[in-house]
Amino acid sequence: MNATPTVTVIGDGQLARMMHTEAIELGVNLRLLAGARDSSAGQVIADVVLGDYRNLDDLRKVAEGVVTFDHEHVPTEHLHALIDDGIAVHPGPEALVNAQDKLVMREKLQEIGAPVPPFAGIQSVADADAFWDSVDGEVCLKATRGGYDGHGVWFPKSKEELEGLVEKLLGENVPLMGEQKVPFVRELSALVARRPSGEVRPWRVVESVQRDGICVEAIAPAPGMDAGLADYCQSLAVKIADELGVTGVLAVELFEYLDEDGMPQVAVNELAMRPHNTGHWTQDGCVTSQFEQHLRAVQDWPLGDVDQTAPVTVMANVLGGDEDPELPMAQRVREVMERYPQVKVHLYGKTYRAGRKIGHVNVSGQSVVKTREIARSAAHFLVTAQWL
Amino acid sequence: MNATPTVTVIGDGQLARMMHTEAIELGVNLRLLAGARDSSAGQVIADVVLGDYRNLDDLRKVAEGVVTFDHEHVPTEHLHALIDDGIAVHPGPEALVNAQDKLVMREKLQEIGAPVPPFAGIQSVADADAFWDSVDGEVCLKATRGGYDGHGVWFPKSKEELEGLVEKLLGENVPLMGEQKVPFVRELSALVARRPSGEVRPWRVVESVQRDGICVEAIAPAPGMDAGLADYCQSLAVKIADELGVTGVLAVELFEYLDEDGMPQVAVNELAMRPHNTGHWTQDGCVTSQFEQHLRAVQDWPLGDVDQTAPVTVMANVLGGDEDPELPMAQRVREVMERYPQVKVHLYGKTYRAGRKIGHVNVSGQSVVKTREIARSAAHFLVTAQWL
Repeated sequence: MNATPTVTVIGDGQLARMMHTEAIELGVNLRLLAGARDSSAGQVIADVVLGDYRNLDDLRKVAEGVVTFDHEHVPTEHLHALIDDGIAVHPGPEALVNAQDKLVMREKLQEIGAPVPPFAGIQSVADADAFWDSVDGEVCLKATRGGYDGHGVWFPKSKEELEGLVEKLLGENVPLMGEQKVPFVRELSALVARRPSGEVRPWRVVESVQRDGICVEAIAPAPGMDAGLADYCQSLAVKIADELGVTGVLAVELFEYLDEDGMPQVAVNELAMRPHNTGHWTQDGCVTSQFEQHLRAVQDWPLGDVDQTAPVTVMANVLGGDEDPELPMAQRVREVMERYPQVKVHLYGKTYRAGRKIGHVNVSGQSVVKTREIARSAAHFLVTAQWL
Repeated sequence: MNATPTVTVIGDGQLARMMHTEAIELGVNLRLLAGARDSSAGQVIADVVLGDYRNLDDLRKVAEGVVTFDHEHVPTEHLHALIDDGIAVHPGPEALVNAQDKLVMREKLQEIGAPVPPFAGIQSVADADAFWDSVDGEVCLKATRGGYDGHGVWFPKSKEELEGLVEKLLGENVPLMGEQKVPFVRELSALVARRPSGEVRPWRVVESVQRDGICVEAIAPAPGMDAGLADYCQSLAVKIADELGVTGVLAVELFEYLDEDGMPQVAVNELAMRPHNTGHWTQDGCVTSQFEQHLRAVQDWPLGDVDQTAPVTVMANVLGGDEDPELPMAQRVREVMERYPQVKVHLYGKTYRAGRKIGHVNVSGQSVVKTREIARSAAHFLVTAQWL
C-alpha cells in the first residue's frame, strides 16, 4: 500500500502555488479548490477543482485528505460541516476564528496574557467616544473582519472624524473595534509551525518593513535585535500557537516599541494562520521553508529543521506600480539575473496591477546593508524596469 | 505585454517533475509531453499533452517556446524537423548526439583533447579480437546507444566470451564499441550549465558512489580531492560544454584513477545533457539548483550563483528493493522526518519496483562522515522500513 497522501488547499493564490512547489518534492498530491484555472495556483497544479470557497457543496466536492487554506475567508460553519463529514481541517475553525475576527483574537490574547494594545469593541458612536477618551485620542479604528494589507484600518485625526467614520461604517454593517495606536519603532514577525499532536518549531524572528500597510521587505533575522526580546517573541508565538490550538503555520505580526524606560517591548498586531508573506525568505534562506513546514504540520508529520543557511536573507516584494513597463516581465527577470546572479526570483503568474503582489525576490548574504540593497534594487527593477 | 515564457519538456520522469518545481517559482509555464497522466511528471504538472516522444506529430503538437528534455531518446531527425519548423531546441541535436552515441562522443572528446580511455568501434568479431589484444584483455564492451544505469555494458573475462558476446549482439543489431577498463579509485561528476550565448557555470565536483552501475550517493564537494585536479575537472566540463555546443545542464561523469606515479588523474566515462542524478544535491545545498539552472540556460537567461550553502551536502538515492515493505511510504517518510529533522525528502510519485529510482534524500552538514551516515540511513529506511 503506497497511496499518495493528499492535501486539499482552499484558495488559488500564490500561497497555494508555492505549497505545490513543496508538495511535488514531498510526494504529496496537492488538490486545489480554485476560482479559475488561470489563477496563480490553478495555472501550475494538476489536480484542480473549480468552485467557490463560500459554497459548501464545492468544498465537499474538493475535500480529500487533509484540508488547509490559502486564505482565511472560508465561512466557519462550512468548516464545521466538513469536520462533521469526517474531514481533517487544519487549522480548525476554533483556531481560525482568531485570524478571521480581530476582536475575538484580542480578547483571546488578553486572556492568555499575550501583550496587546488597549482595545474595545465598538457597537455605537458612544462606544467610539468612550474609547477615544480612554486612550487620549490615540485611536486606530479597525474592521474586525475582512481587512488585509492596510484595508479596513483607519486613523481618525479627531473625535468628530472618528464619530463620522463609525456612523458610516456601522451603517454599512462593518463590525468595528478600536485599538490604541502603538508608537512602534518597527514591525516584527514571529513565525511558527505547529502539528495537531503538539510539536511546534519557531523560525528566527524577522523584521517586516511596511509601506502603506503592506509588507515590502522582510529581513531575517531582525537586525540588531535584543537577544532576550527575540527569545521572548519566539516563545510568545509558540504559546499563542499552543493556546489557540493552531495547526500549520502561524504568523504573529508584532509592533516593537520603546517603553517608558526606553526598553524595547513588543505588542501583537495581527495573526495569520497559513504561510505568510514575512516567511517567504525561508524558501531560500532556511533548511525547511514555510510551505514545506505547513504541509508537514497540517498532515501531523514531524517538523523540519529551521536553521538559517546564510547569515542574513532578505525578501523584497514585487508590488505592481502605477504602470506596467513596456519591457516584458521575462526580460526584466533576465536583466535582474544578469546583474545579480545571487537573486532568487519568485513570480506568481499574476497580471500586473497597482499595489498587487505579483512576486518576490530572496537574497542571502553576509551583510544586512548590502543584501537589502540588492533585494530592493532587484524588486524595484522588476516593478519599474528602471535601476534605482 | 507580460506573456508567460513557456518551456516544453519532452519526457515525463522525475527530472521533468523537478523542473516543474523550479518553473513554478520562476514564473515559467512548463508544458509537458507525457506518455501517461500518472507518470512522475504528469501527476503534478498542469499543462500536459499526452503523446509519444518518438512520434513527430506529437512533438509538433506539444512544442511551444523552448523545447528541452527529460531524457536523451528523442530521434535526432525529429529534432531537426522541429528546428526547421522554427522551434528552439536545447540541447540541439548536434550536441545531443554526443550523449546518445558513446562512440561519436569518444571520438569528439579525443578530438578536443579531453582524456578518454583507449577505445574502438566494433563492427565484427575481428575488431573485437584486435581491441582485446591492444588493451591486454582489459576490455569493457558497450552498446554505443541506449544504455543507462549499467545496462548495455559488459565485462568479458576471456577473449572467447568477448567473441561470443559480440557475435550475439551484432546479430541483434546492437551497435558496439570497446573501451579499456579503467582501474578507477572512485567516480566523480562535474556538472555545468551553459547558455546558447556562451555563459557557462560549473558546480563543485562531486563524488558519485555507484553500486552495480547505478549511482547510489553523491557527495558534494568530492571529499579529499586534490584542488588542482578539482579545478581541472571543472575546466574540462566547461571545455566540453563549449566545444560540443551544449545548452542546458551537462553532466560529465569521470573516473578518478592513479597514474604510474601514483598521482590522481581523470578520464571521461559518460556525458548526460540534462539535469543529472549526481546534481540532485544542488536542490538543497546550492544557491541555484540544477533544475532552475537548466530552465535558465535553455531559455538563454543569465545563470545563477552556484555557491554551496553548507560545507557538505550528501544525496542518497531511494532505490526500490526486492520487496515493498508493508509500512506505507508516507509512514516511512514520517519516521525518517521524526529521526532526522534535517533530511530533505524528495519523492517521484512512482510505484515501488526493484532497482527503480523512486526518490532521493539530501542532507547538509559540517562533517562528511556524519552527513553520509544520515543520508544513507534515511534512504535505507525509505526503501526497507528498517533502520541500518
